[in-house]
Amino acid sequence: LKMAKNTNIRISLPAVCFVWQIAMIILFGVFIRYDEESDTHWIEHRRKKNISTNLENDFYYRYPSFQDVHVMIFVGFGFLMTFLKRYSFGGVGFNFLIAAFGIQWALLMQGWFHHLDENDWKIKIGVENLINADFCVASCLIAYGACLGKVSPVQLMVLTLFGVTLFAVEEYIILELLHAKDAGGSMVIHTFGAYYGLTISWVLYRPLLSQSRHLQGSVYHSDVFAMIGTLFLWMYWPSFNSAIADHGDGQHRAVINTYLALASSVLTTFAISSISQNNGKLDMVHIQNATLAGGVAMGTASEFMITPYGSLIVGFCSGIVSTFGYLFLTPFMEKTLKIQDTCGIHNLHAMPGVIGGIVGAITAASASESVYGQEGLINTFDFKDAVANRTVNIQGGYQAAGLFVAIAFGLVGGALVGGILKLPIWGDPADANCFDDDVYWEVCCFHKNKSEHGLFPFFIFLHQ
Amino acid sequence: LKMAKNTNIRISLPAVCFVWQIAMIILFGVFIRYDEESDTHWIEHRRKKNISTNLENDFYYRYPSFQDVHVMIFVGFGFLMTFLKRYSFGGVGFNFLIAAFGIQWALLMQGWFHHLDENDWKIKIGVENLINADFCVASCLIAYGACLGKVSPVQLMVLTLFGVTLFAVEEYIILELLHAKDAGGSMVIHTFGAYYGLTISWVLYRPLLSQSRHLQGSVYHSDVFAMIGTLFLWMYWPSFNSAIADHGDGQHRAVINTYLALASSVLTTFAISSISQNNGKLDMVHIQNATLAGGVAMGTASEFMITPYGSLIVGFCSGIVSTFGYLFLTPFMEKTLKIQDTCGIHNLHAMPGVIGGIVGAITAASASESVYGQEGLINTFDFKDAVANRTVNIQGGYQAAGLFVAIAFGLVGGALVGGILKLPIWGDPADANCFDDDVYWEVCCFHKNKSEHGLFPFFIFLHQ
Amino acid sequence: LKMAKNTNIRISLPAVCFVWQIAMIILFGVFIRYDEESDTHWIEHRRKKNISTNLENDFYYRYPSFQDVHVMIFVGFGFLMTFLKRYSFGGVGFNFLIAAFGIQWALLMQGWFHHLDENDWKIKIGVENLINADFCVASCLIAYGACLGKVSPVQLMVLTLFGVTLFAVEEYIILELLHAKDAGGSMVIHTFGAYYGLTISWVLYRPLLSQSRHLQGSVYHSDVFAMIGTLFLWMYWPSFNSAIADHGDGQHRAVINTYLALASSVLTTFAISSISQNNGKLDMVHIQNATLAGGVAMGTASEFMITPYGSLIVGFCSGIVSTFGYLFLTPFMEKTLKIQDTCGIHNLHAMPGVIGGIVGAITAASASESVYGQEGLINTFDFKDAVANRTVNIQGGYQAAGLFVAIAFGLVGGALVGGILKLPIWGDPADANCFDDDVYWEVCCFHKNKSEHGLFPFFIFLHQ
Repeated sequence: LKMAKNTNIRISLPAVCFVWQIAMIILFGVFIRYDEESDTHWIEHRRKKNISTNLENDFYYRYPSFQDVHVMIFVGFGFLMTFLKRYSFGGVGFNFLIAAFGIQWALLMQGWFHHLDENDWKIKIGVENLINADFCVASCLIAYGACLGKVSPVQLMVLTLFGVTLFAVEEYIILELLHAKDAGGSMVIHTFGAYYGLTISWVLYRPLLSQSRHLQGSVYHSDVFAMIGTLFLWMYWPSFNSAIADHGDGQHRAVINTYLALASSVLTTFAISSISQNNGKLDMVHIQNATLAGGVAMGTASEFMITPYGSLIVGFCSGIVSTFGYLFLTPFMEKTLKIQDTCGIHNLHAMPGVIGGIVGAITAASASESVYGQEGLINTFDFKDAVANRTVNIQGGYQAAGLFVAIAFGLVGGALVGGILKLPIWGDPADANCFDDDVYWEVCCFHKNKSEHGLFPFFIFLHQ
Repeated sequence: LKMAKNTNIRISLPAVCFVWQIAMIILFGVFIRYDEESDTHWIEHRRKKNISTNLENDFYYRYPSFQDVHVMIFVGFGFLMTFLKRYSFGGVGFNFLIAAFGIQWALLMQGWFHHLDENDWKIKIGVENLINADFCVASCLIAYGACLGKVSPVQLMVLTLFGVTLFAVEEYIILELLHAKDAGGSMVIHTFGAYYGLTISWVLYRPLLSQSRHLQGSVYHSDVFAMIGTLFLWMYWPSFNSAIADHGDGQHRAVINTYLALASSVLTTFAISSISQNNGKLDMVHIQNATLAGGVAMGTASEFMITPYGSLIVGFCSGIVSTFGYLFLTPFMEKTLKIQDTCGIHNLHAMPGVIGGIVGAITAASASESVYGQEGLINTFDFKDAVANRTVNIQGGYQAAGLFVAIAFGLVGGALVGGILKLPIWGDPADANCFDDDVYWEVCCFHKNKSEHGLFPFFIFLHQ
Repeated sequence: LKMAKNTNIRISLPAVCFVWQIAMIILFGVFIRYDEESDTHWIEHRRKKNISTNLENDFYYRYPSFQDVHVMIFVGFGFLMTFLKRYSFGGVGFNFLIAAFGIQWALLMQGWFHHLDENDWKIKIGVENLINADFCVASCLIAYGACLGKVSPVQLMVLTLFGVTLFAVEEYIILELLHAKDAGGSMVIHTFGAYYGLTISWVLYRPLLSQSRHLQGSVYHSDVFAMIGTLFLWMYWPSFNSAIADHGDGQHRAVINTYLALASSVLTTFAISSISQNNGKLDMVHIQNATLAGGVAMGTASEFMITPYGSLIVGFCSGIVSTFGYLFLTPFMEKTLKIQDTCGIHNLHAMPGVIGGIVGAITAASASESVYGQEGLINTFDFKDAVANRTVNIQGGYQAAGLFVAIAFGLVGGALVGGILKLPIWGDPADANCFDDDVYWEVCCFHKNKSEHGLFPFFIFLHQ
């Protein structure tokens, strides 16, 4: 194996992990405290606010959804990225590393922007903050998908540090300043994360990546592993889109809408995948990815009264668009635009995310009191305080504006961070050594065992 | 590889997916609406009904169980069917496809029979409908188990279309007309689904299936994949049997009973598996399947006061019966009755389902006010309105009648649908091409990579 | 393959499974009943106690956490033990068997010690008992980790029978007599379980185990399977540490603390793993195990006001200690202390468990009314009834005493049970046949298919 570049990360990776983790401890010590629902003073708080039962602690509204989201982040994204034949360790392992760092940094960044208590300048955290931290990290994991197999873990840590930072800012602009709604993050998470990753991948373009082409594919069992990721994302997506939705009908409706959109996009994905191949044979890449497009596209409008059949239509279209993306856009982008997108995040996150933002804007603009009820309309769009007099048409405009903010942050942020990641100090692999776990992992059986046991390969072969 | 039959599904599969999905959209547009707990008018509804908290929304009673059931349907059933050495894509992939279609069709069919609002002829859906749709689809996935590897995805879609239809009718007869109880679906789901699938498999009998015998087995890692399915089914079965049980003690008791029955059937499965082989070696097929028999057999009586030791006895017996089925009945049925049952659903679903129905009938007939309490008896069996005066003995009789309805629907429905699936238009594989993903999937490494990279097979071999 | 010892378990395993399961049924019949929240009399109980809603049934507080814990026990522990190249069946399969037996025996043992109703001498069970049974079994699964691949399933059943028994006694001493707090079981579960298993492994020392060295390692895909176990343990650990914590802020805070400690230990694990190898290459063994140390070490203090940054510090240190353990202590213990620890439970459970006990003692001793509030302090430490006047310093002392009890029970109990397991009647494998599924399982493709299909191995090879 050629090792043209220095991929030694024995200093840089431990240094980054240690220093940043110590920084987290210090910053948490200065800024982060329990909120009133996770503090031992909760019992006094309950009495003061006349809360009759412990169940009214937000924990019981959101914890089941939180755990589902948590599974999506670590098993869903992680195993979806195990599909490459020799990069399964890197797929699930680096996903684990950067998510574990990112959630800490996200608690701080999102806390400073959204939850800073002005009395004592502390961030008070509870279960909703944990969910939002997971959400924030999802955008960086999406970005990782474009770079899978081509970057070092140190680069991924940098990508996550800046990604979380950018996320917190754009989220603040979209949700607080523009007062757009985006419960499942079509814009804030998916659109931003995808354009962030794609732009980084564009800056890091590798002209000779074809030298690693023999590893840029799956083997039979790696495709089955990836289906674990796909299915846990698919099954728990209703929890993703409802996790921070309004208590009561808000969460309930978000689940129904997402469930339906996802089911619909499975059928159109299978249809387009089959029609595109000789003999109608299905392509695992499509099934693993485009089936999820309905969940992405339902992220913004999941709380709205989009109607059950409206959700089916959203899933129908996004499944088609996403599968076509894998068939035509990914090769085109690689050849013409010089964007190498390992997991096809443009098809799974960028396009369905944009669809989701547009659907959200349209659905908001066409909301009415006759459908929502007077109180329902106010509750759903939070037309209170500063925006008490906003009309649904104006809300639709702000939703659309939010979409552009997400895209702009992705493009500009990705260009900046891509530039940083281009520095020759991060230990990334040579073009001929991409998609290979052997670069960053002690891969057990190849080097060591082969020399130790002459007959060993024959042995596993028979016993696989 | 011989390709005696035309397995080209490039027209038929996309056509079925597109047309049926569009039909779903139209029918949802006409019939399906949010129910009052998932509609923005929930806040007005709360006030009107004097509901003090958002937590009383049924969502918070049932959503955690729903997500567990959802995992059982897609990962549980899907991965249980990955055990074949070269049919893992088809096992988990087609399971995904037909479940995604089936849940939509089930929302309509079950809605028309159970939830049609007579004021506006709309079906109002909430989280309980989503659970019931997942339940309904489970019966078709069970039926798929008998046909695994021998049918085309188009046939599976047809099997699901009719299976869901038949399910909705028999469920209506059993639960509404006979007023039988079946919270976990021993009769309605497992018995029906198994006989439906077995009868289809009998109609589609393949005399020369031994030509595919070299693929009708597992490899080491495919057996480990299947254990993912087994365990997620096993772990979440308490949620399955309690998901639509009564709020409060009903759900609580269903969980305890199912937890115990499952634990018990694990021990008897290991015992029978070990005693049946030289040196007491265990057979993975038994462990993957018969350990679940306790959950199936506890489906009907899970809500009843069957007592904890009663649950253990049910699990004890069903584990034994199921394992004996794999040892003796499956080979017998294949040779003598011409029923080829790939996954052994007769052992896992048919027999334990029938046991569950019988146990339910006996437990109901022996219920008493001294054990249940006066109110408890009424609540558990819903002795209200039209059946306010029903005695427990009569209830036991109706339970038994329900079991026969489930079997009859399975046999007659399976014969009819089997006849339809025998038409030579569905693209099913030849007897020599069964259990082979290569027929319906682009299997990555075999054809393409072998030609491109002469050394590639040697490479993965060393690196597996 | 040499078969020096008699590993035939065709009589012993079925006998143990049958006899013990029948004993369970009898003992359950005599002792176990539904508690008032899972009994049909719940509706009368509600009225009597003036409970306004079904949601106040403990089921709704704890069921989501219970299911997460259940997944940890069966998929988490089970798949973590699939990492060996030829012992995946034994890893996940025997874990399944002994957990299914152990939870039944635990319901009885824990019931007799903690939940025996003095009026009728019955044990009344509900969802909290199910969680505690899962917890109890976890200690035996930890002990299994030290013996993985070296013992027969019959030995594991014996290990579990005595392990659960010892657990119930030490738990009673620590939680009831000493009134120590240990919500997530750093002491009661992890410390006890680890020393129990290590002592057994020490008694069963195999001087010629190097004869099986060629199987004591992983292959590529078995390492990916093990990551399924790792991640489900990691993701659901917040549920583990909060499952039986106090309603309201107790559960809420335990989740936050555990979430943070786990995130922190991921980063230090990656750091130490990288710094210890040439080129900074990561070792999958570390990533699979030491990343979990934060969860173990947060078991005792998870309910306390340890502060978010305190949790990060605990995770930081335990990740380092655990990874160093894998690097230096495991080889040292094997060579010098004659303790063969297949999974490295000393590093993942023993040391982090002890850390957790110490952290718990310190945190308790430094608790104060100014931080906890007067009521909060009483609620958190249950300073009521017999211990109403206990100070936090004394509580800290009792916490430390609890840690010693856990260690002592592990060491003494392990020595006794190890002695029993040394008897030459249990069918354990010879030193040259360890880590080999072929001893206790019908491994499909090796013996049978090779003879039947001469070309078969070549076939799977191309298609893997």
